Amino acid sequence: MSPVSFARQRYTTKAYDASRQVDQAIVDELLELLRLSPSSVNSQPWHFVVANTAEGKARLAKGAQGGFAYNQPKILNASHVILICARRDLDDAYLANVLQQEADDGRFRDDAARTTQHNTRSSYVELHRGLGDIPHWAEKQAYLALGTLLLGAAAKGVDATPMEGIDREALDEELGLAAQGLSSMVAVALGYHSDSDFNAALPKSRLPAERVFTHL
Amino acid sequence: MSPVSFARQRYTTKAYDASRQVDQAIVDELLELLRLSPSSVNSQPWHFVVANTAEGKARLAKGAQGGFAYNQPKILNASHVILICARRDLDDAYLANVLQQEADDGRFRDDAARTTQHNTRSSYVELHRGLGDIPHWAEKQAYLALGTLLLGAAAKGVDATPMEGIDREALDEELGLAAQGLSSMVAVALGYHSDSDFNAALPKSRLPAERVFTHL
Repeated sequence: MSPVSFARQRYTTKAYDASRQVDQAIVDELLELLRLSPSSVNSQPWHFVVANTAEGKARLAKGAQGGFAYNQPKILNASHVILICARRDLDDAYLANVLQQEADDGRFRDDAARTTQHNTRSSYVELHRGLGDIPHWAEKQAYLALGTLLLGAAAKGVDATPMEGIDREALDEELGLAAQGLSSMVAVALGYHSDSDFNAALPKSRLPAERVFTHL
Repeated sequence: MSPVSFARQRYTTKAYDASRQVDQAIVDELLELLRLSPSSVNSQPWHFVVANTAEGKARLAKGAQGGFAYNQPKILNASHVILICARRDLDDAYLANVLQQEADDGRFRDDAARTTQHNTRSSYVELHRGLGDIPHWAEKQAYLALGTLLLGAAAKGVDATPMEGIDREALDEELGLAAQGLSSMVAVALGYHSDSDFNAALPKSRLPAERVFTHL
């Protein structure tokens, strides 16, 4: 089937069937899809917290209290919940790790290629450091990964709910993310919708092509 | 084939075969994938400028001068280039358009449902207005669409290059984007790589799973 068919079928699930689990092999594929996501200068400025135990989901549900309580049942009833986090900085130690990984994976035929890659990436990081928007830049890359995940889940027949409506500070605190140089951004519930999901039967709505495309 | 297979196969193309065009039917599918991308509260805060004529690509190449000249050949030699833009604001008129589209598409069984949707979306917009980050919020949604596009292109066997290395201000000026409430963000070349693309044969590199996942 074509990717556009999956895009047409998918929708934001509002209620999950707590009795249904996503096969671990499918979850592993979706995690691999996140890990392989492209990012600017291969910066990979992200981290993914994956909960599929009752205890793990209860911890993530601490980010769905008060004004965000409407998302709590999704977190608790979904099969898996992935909290997408972004790096707050890309410091020299982190950049050295990425470079070494690229070397280990065989991307540099010689030292010159390695140096070129390091200089290119560093210049982008310095550009964004100058703009003061490294966290914003990192968050955009993490959303790119989110797009990959949502289409991939649809292709695997897995229902999903991206949730910006979470208490990011509470989750940063609960998971000790700041100490890891991370901040939480958006959670994604994965599973299978319940019969009570009103959104399952509603038609998708998008602005028409003439509103969103300009052809040159 | 599985989405993860496409993710493994895809890579950032560095040089295009200018003699090869992507079939319009495939391009249309990829545009539909962009149009159908999910976004927070269905805000769809994006616009896509698509160039596939020589004149159109020459206009986008005005954003690849000076320090960005390394991206000029990709823009000129690719089959199609899509400039992804984000909305700078989500004003009342825009929100009314989205709401009306949802009504036209049959998402509201009654006025109460319509009002609930309007209030939910407006409260998110006001939240981000209060945070002063509406453009940033919109840009994240546009990157979600970018992730969708890149995986979709891979699934269709189309090579792609996301390019943050463009002169966004020059493109905003060239295309009159500010007057439309838009700003350019990232360009994506689509086509088929040339024999001279050094990156085609290099192995993909990503940080290992134990670095990017935490399991709860």
